[in-house]
Amino acid sequence: MTTAEDSREEGPSSLAQRLLAGDRRALARAITLVENDDPAGWELVREVYPSTGRAAVVGFTGPPGVGKSTLMGALVSHERALGRSVAVLSIDPSSPFTRGALLGDRIRLADHFLDPGVFIRSMANRGALGGLSEAALQAALLMDAAGRDLVLLETVGVGQAEVDIIDHADTVVLVLMPGSGDSIQALKAGVMEIPDVIVVNKSDHPMTDTMVREIRAVLALGPRADWQVPVLRTEALRGEGIAELAQTLASHRAEIEAQGTLAERRRRNLLNEVMAIATQRLRRGLEDALRGDEGVRELLDAVVARRLDPASAAAEILARADPGHGP
Amino acid sequence: MTTAEDSREEGPSSLAQRLLAGDRRALARAITLVENDDPAGWELVREVYPSTGRAAVVGFTGPPGVGKSTLMGALVSHERALGRSVAVLSIDPSSPFTRGALLGDRIRLADHFLDPGVFIRSMANRGALGGLSEAALQAALLMDAAGRDLVLLETVGVGQAEVDIIDHADTVVLVLMPGSGDSIQALKAGVMEIPDVIVVNKSDHPMTDTMVREIRAVLALGPRADWQVPVLRTEALRGEGIAELAQTLASHRAEIEAQGTLAERRRRNLLNEVMAIATQRLRRGLEDALRGDEGVRELLDAVVARRLDPASAAAEILARADPGHGP
Repeated sequence: MTTAEDSREEGPSSLAQRLLAGDRRALARAITLVENDDPAGWELVREVYPSTGRAAVVGFTGPPGVGKSTLMGALVSHERALGRSVAVLSIDPSSPFTRGALLGDRIRLADHFLDPGVFIRSMANRGALGGLSEAALQAALLMDAAGRDLVLLETVGVGQAEVDIIDHADTVVLVLMPGSGDSIQALKAGVMEIPDVIVVNKSDHPMTDTMVREIRAVLALGPRADWQVPVLRTEALRGEGIAELAQTLASHRAEIEAQGTLAERRRRNLLNEVMAIATQRLRRGLEDALRGDEGVRELLDAVVARRLDPASAAAEILARADPGHGP
Repeated sequence: MTTAEDSREEGPSSLAQRLLAGDRRALARAITLVENDDPAGWELVREVYPSTGRAAVVGFTGPPGVGKSTLMGALVSHERALGRSVAVLSIDPSSPFTRGALLGDRIRLADHFLDPGVFIRSMANRGALGGLSEAALQAALLMDAAGRDLVLLETVGVGQAEVDIIDHADTVVLVLMPGSGDSIQALKAGVMEIPDVIVVNKSDHPMTDTMVREIRAVLALGPRADWQVPVLRTEALRGEGIAELAQTLASHRAEIEAQGTLAERRRRNLLNEVMAIATQRLRRGLEDALRGDEGVRELLDAVVARRLDPASAAAEILARADPGHGP
């Protein structure tokens, strides 16, 4: 174990060594670098990237309030009892007004704060302007490189999430609860992707059976697939159904590994990620090139005054910026 | 009225004239051009853009199944009785499997298919690769230029929608129904923006009062604002509450016009749109530049093999493509 002071003073390469050795402070610092878009963070990811691809990555999604954090906390306890190391990354796109509420939620993971085998981190949306997914994926890669057996990603989303980090999970778990009518409708209408596993949490609620039946009916409408989506019941506060969930996650992973879909999925996701990073950099280059450009302000004023249409303004802006020569 | 043949053969300028005169076929054809990303469509928007900004644009959002289409159909009847012309644009991000279901939903607008004062169009997501918002906004501009008094936009979304066309509405209406627990939670957690008006449809349901109370409680938690978000009850199938909804929409618009927020909102949205179009074109330029590039394939293979990290691959791809010189 190193001290906080050491880890702050060391160079990137030594930081990479510590991270690869599983040092928690090194991992924390590395994620901060990535979150701040510090070039040293990107450098670090480059250095440790060959050691990634070993962790099982499970994504948890679903509407707020269904108990995702509690469920993940219970799963972490289960995995820890089996001796596996875990990292949890929560993506929190909530508004600044309600940040407190979600932090309170996260405290349900607090049982694990003192366990060196569990690393917990959350990332927020504000200010990142589209770069959150990018930073979150880098953070997940760092957790993987730090030797965590299991990386859990958590996002809040119903329908189409802005944050597509969840696509980078090997297994996607949708968490619902009795009363999640909107999500059922979204699944039914095809505006929400079918996940790999569905969990109905808070299963001591009297409407649970109805909910499970509704979900099964929706799944029966979908196309036939190799993997039959399991619908599990959990009561995470009391730890009920958690062993079955862990077992199901292991089965799903074994199945996609055997079928070759794991490699396929990871390939597709990495390629999407490369394009997403490239696009993000193009946009940033464009914004940098335009900052303080008086001509751009005039173009935008002309759009607002309805003298120049948005597409023509965009074309003129691209001609001015020439961001292809950017970073 | 012109014939379909005329409108297919005429050049862009004559098409613009017909569109500005309110010709429905010209409007339909113009939207098809935009939807197909035909340069003639962009040219047309450029020509008619000075005639936009007159319509009242109202966006309807909310989970699938709450009755948005029925509600909009009822509102259209109400507005038609007052002699106002209407255009409806539905953005449909559903999967190809379920397209039928949502089309069935849209048939509830079918009462109006024969009324020349009502123009109805839907746009789907598939294949557009991020360009749907862009095309939808252009379509809304065309509807506005064609002299429609009221333009209604419909999107299906819970939480954060991929399709941000709704931002371009002057007034945003969130439609819920008793049982929309996930949406209430999303509002509460701050992952869903607070709309201008909330409608609880299907209000003959016994849980309506509870639902309305819950919504009011969530709104009371939010920051104080100039506009108090009204929570209305409608039973759209029987036309109940529709006159009050129309009245509320008019009040909201009068209010934001008086406060100057309408101009501010439109300014912000147009500027976002310019940047979105520019970014979209950069990405397309990048993809075009890379198509068939063998070196890119090798880079991506190296990423999948964990030899090269995604960010470094993105940087190399940007260096190869130099898309700043694109269209």
